[in-house]
Amino acid sequence: MMLSEYLSAEMGRVDQHSALPLHRKLYEALRRAMLDGKLVAGERLPSSRDMANDLSVSRNTVVSAIGQLSVEGYLVSHVGSGTFVSDNLPRAMVRPRSRNTAQRPQLSHRGDALVSQFSASTLEVQPFTPGITDFSAFPVALWQRLQNKHWRMTYPDMLDYSASGGYAPLRRAVADYLRVFRSVQLEPQQVIITSGTQQSLTLCAQLLADHGDTVWVEDPAYWGAVKAFMATGLHLHPVAVDDEGIAPSAHDEAHTPRLIYVTPSHQYPTGAVMSAQRRQHLLDVARHHKAWVLEDDYDSEFRFSGPPISSLEGLDKDERVLYMGTFSKVLYPGLKLGYLVVPKELVSPFNQVHYDLNRPGQLPLQAALAEFIDMGHFASALRRARVSYAQRRECLLEALRVCLGGAVHVSGAEQGLHLCLRLPATVDDQALAQRIARAGLTARPLSGYCLQRTDLSGLVIGYGYASLADIRTHGPLLARLIEQALAGNSSVTAPRVR
Amino acid sequence: MMLSEYLSAEMGRVDQHSALPLHRKLYEALRRAMLDGKLVAGERLPSSRDMANDLSVSRNTVVSAIGQLSVEGYLVSHVGSGTFVSDNLPRAMVRPRSRNTAQRPQLSHRGDALVSQFSASTLEVQPFTPGITDFSAFPVALWQRLQNKHWRMTYPDMLDYSASGGYAPLRRAVADYLRVFRSVQLEPQQVIITSGTQQSLTLCAQLLADHGDTVWVEDPAYWGAVKAFMATGLHLHPVAVDDEGIAPSAHDEAHTPRLIYVTPSHQYPTGAVMSAQRRQHLLDVARHHKAWVLEDDYDSEFRFSGPPISSLEGLDKDERVLYMGTFSKVLYPGLKLGYLVVPKELVSPFNQVHYDLNRPGQLPLQAALAEFIDMGHFASALRRARVSYAQRRECLLEALRVCLGGAVHVSGAEQGLHLCLRLPATVDDQALAQRIARAGLTARPLSGYCLQRTDLSGLVIGYGYASLADIRTHGPLLARLIEQALAGNSSVTAPRVR
Repeated sequence: MMLSEYLSAEMGRVDQHSALPLHRKLYEALRRAMLDGKLVAGERLPSSRDMANDLSVSRNTVVSAIGQLSVEGYLVSHVGSGTFVSDNLPRAMVRPRSRNTAQRPQLSHRGDALVSQFSASTLEVQPFTPGITDFSAFPVALWQRLQNKHWRMTYPDMLDYSASGGYAPLRRAVADYLRVFRSVQLEPQQVIITSGTQQSLTLCAQLLADHGDTVWVEDPAYWGAVKAFMATGLHLHPVAVDDEGIAPSAHDEAHTPRLIYVTPSHQYPTGAVMSAQRRQHLLDVARHHKAWVLEDDYDSEFRFSGPPISSLEGLDKDERVLYMGTFSKVLYPGLKLGYLVVPKELVSPFNQVHYDLNRPGQLPLQAALAEFIDMGHFASALRRARVSYAQRRECLLEALRVCLGGAVHVSGAEQGLHLCLRLPATVDDQALAQRIARAGLTARPLSGYCLQRTDLSGLVIGYGYASLADIRTHGPLLARLIEQALAGNSSVTAPRVR
Repeated sequence: MMLSEYLSAEMGRVDQHSALPLHRKLYEALRRAMLDGKLVAGERLPSSRDMANDLSVSRNTVVSAIGQLSVEGYLVSHVGSGTFVSDNLPRAMVRPRSRNTAQRPQLSHRGDALVSQFSASTLEVQPFTPGITDFSAFPVALWQRLQNKHWRMTYPDMLDYSASGGYAPLRRAVADYLRVFRSVQLEPQQVIITSGTQQSLTLCAQLLADHGDTVWVEDPAYWGAVKAFMATGLHLHPVAVDDEGIAPSAHDEAHTPRLIYVTPSHQYPTGAVMSAQRRQHLLDVARHHKAWVLEDDYDSEFRFSGPPISSLEGLDKDERVLYMGTFSKVLYPGLKLGYLVVPKELVSPFNQVHYDLNRPGQLPLQAALAEFIDMGHFASALRRARVSYAQRRECLLEALRVCLGGAVHVSGAEQGLHLCLRLPATVDDQALAQRIARAGLTARPLSGYCLQRTDLSGLVIGYGYASLADIRTHGPLLARLIEQALAGNSSVTAPRVR
């Protein structure tokens, strides 16, 4: 059988799952061709033009599918000679060599725990996957122009490590933005450019807490933070979240925190906004325990209604709040630039240890970003994104309307890139999420974010990645699956089952 | 007094320290002008052209000095409107707000230890500073072309995080290089692209060791690794190094290691090459203790004489060696790309945890690097660098010849970017290093790298950053200062004292 026939047949089979975009179908078909041995290691693929003709799809579809397979290591492109099947099998197919296993050391307990807990790397990127954004609109040409400009001006210092908290104009631009839009009180030297929130959190844990110290985390929680604290040896104490955010009880206060990690503007994942009273209380509790507060303001750029929520840092009278944010949601994730705002007296130790442990760099990229912000492109990207995400959010809410009522309601839709659909605790949200996955969509079970509590059921549904068209097409299906679950009708077959 | 008069006067004063290049003198004069209040916050600097005319220096000199001050946050450039004095004082001048200090929490013990130990961020970059390279010859225009090409082809996936160990063609290129040149046995999927050796070491410590587990480190040691292990809670057990590398004794074996960190090709900082017998012994010891071996091959690209030293990994029969390297020495430090080679059975857990903890990205940069390697530019950059560093090394050895003899000898000059001058233990190498610093040069005292032992004296002298001209000019001064120290003549004034 010709390759194109095989691929057409496979795409047809996958076609039953009509939620998949065309390039994803081709991706699946090509992947299967390799796993089935139809395409063997080292084999050259037809050109994207030929493949597009043979399969009657657009060349973009082919390029996109090949791109994904290249990123994942299935295919390799050689300039001028084409694209080849990697002669290395994907890692799932690798078996360890069998000799000497008895003598071989193992992962540490820490390593085992880090591996066995929930992992973001296994997630399918599909309509409604939360936590990811649509960066297809990123102005690549403009960005390239800015990068080029700074590469042309590059003096050697720009190619070196950065010992002083980052590129100064970028720190100033971040400070200006945070002062105006987030009511953060700061001088530019308090801004430390990091490779993102994971690095910001890790630095805080390393410098401000010792192994075995207690960190309060919200329950349910953002898993990236939980992992960072696990990796730095902290004892996790989950504190339940209600509609006003983190709500420490007397029981919680018996577990003296050294760090308190919160997402006050838009609790992840419930979306609760921390009330003013609760904010003051949290700062009082922190003062009482001499704890540091880590404020993760991960998506406050995307607020759709109501007044902007001020930062917790802005209320802080005694410099115990460390504030962090990221550029990955407005620009693109792989940029790997974020920021951490520390109290003045921490600037010097944080900069020093950040340098010693991480050797920060990427100054030309930081320079391009500083200019992107200074020239107003960041603000316009943000404006465009806000409009686009607001439409998606509306469309998703509209689709979900049929499910709402009684114990079923939406939380956290005023801001961000996801909303949280709250379900009666009797609904098995994990089973529901699996049925949704079988339909080619992804929504995460709320209970999957819970550390300790067992009273929550719901779905965390993202609209940052799904296009408006996707939401229009697949929103009703999602709603139907939810309705079925609510009706206790879990034995009804989902419209499309693999 | 006019600014230009002040700057000329200051440059004249600094001029007594004739080891400083002109741009560094101007840098010092400008910095002093700001600290003295001659240039005040928000003030606009004259254009670089005007300043160059007024001071009778080249415009390049002005641009370089301003560049450095911008990187350090003293100056800020606004496109189209010029360069201004930052209205933020450098961090050394910042005083903490005084209120509520009693209630303010402190750094953790871990944080204190990380801050108070030796820090690379405080080092002056001057002739003979070890550990840094000359990246002024980096082919910026070519690099920019490659980056542009990949930005033009960029499909959205390239802007996302990288969940699968890095950009596949880069992993393949690294695997090809290591198989051929370093005798590392590997498949491309065993290569994990990291942000450099610090991240590679941290991942290993997180996944393979628990808090309190013992890691053997060489004594003297590479401080970056020591800090990474401190940050991850490991117990450091120093093992003395001799002329054949790490030499574990029966006493050492009583401290069962979970990890063994070594630099076998060119011990940092002594430069010892681990002998074949010692390598086999180390692997036996590791097997006996079920320990993992971390091989840091930080500068093996630069071998000047004798046969290439094979990797320890190449001798490993039971997959217990993890091998790491970096691109920062051949390309430029701020690139922040390195690699970690793990045994096959660790590929999946390392990729997963790397993704969960670090969210790796920078795929367009990885793509540019892959092509840079595939097209042979990496090999030519390496060839050029080898020739250039070999000349510098010769010149430095020539200058130091007058000091050699008796207990004074050079170790580790066959490879790398630094050599180690061994001195009699009676010589106070810290005092000598201080006198060298007062002369405007930097060499690090060997005793400063020692964790436990007190029998070593010497100087770690870098030729990666100093140009051939610098070495010709300042090498004899360096040798003179060493001779004085050897003569016990430490009261003789160095030629130029601040």
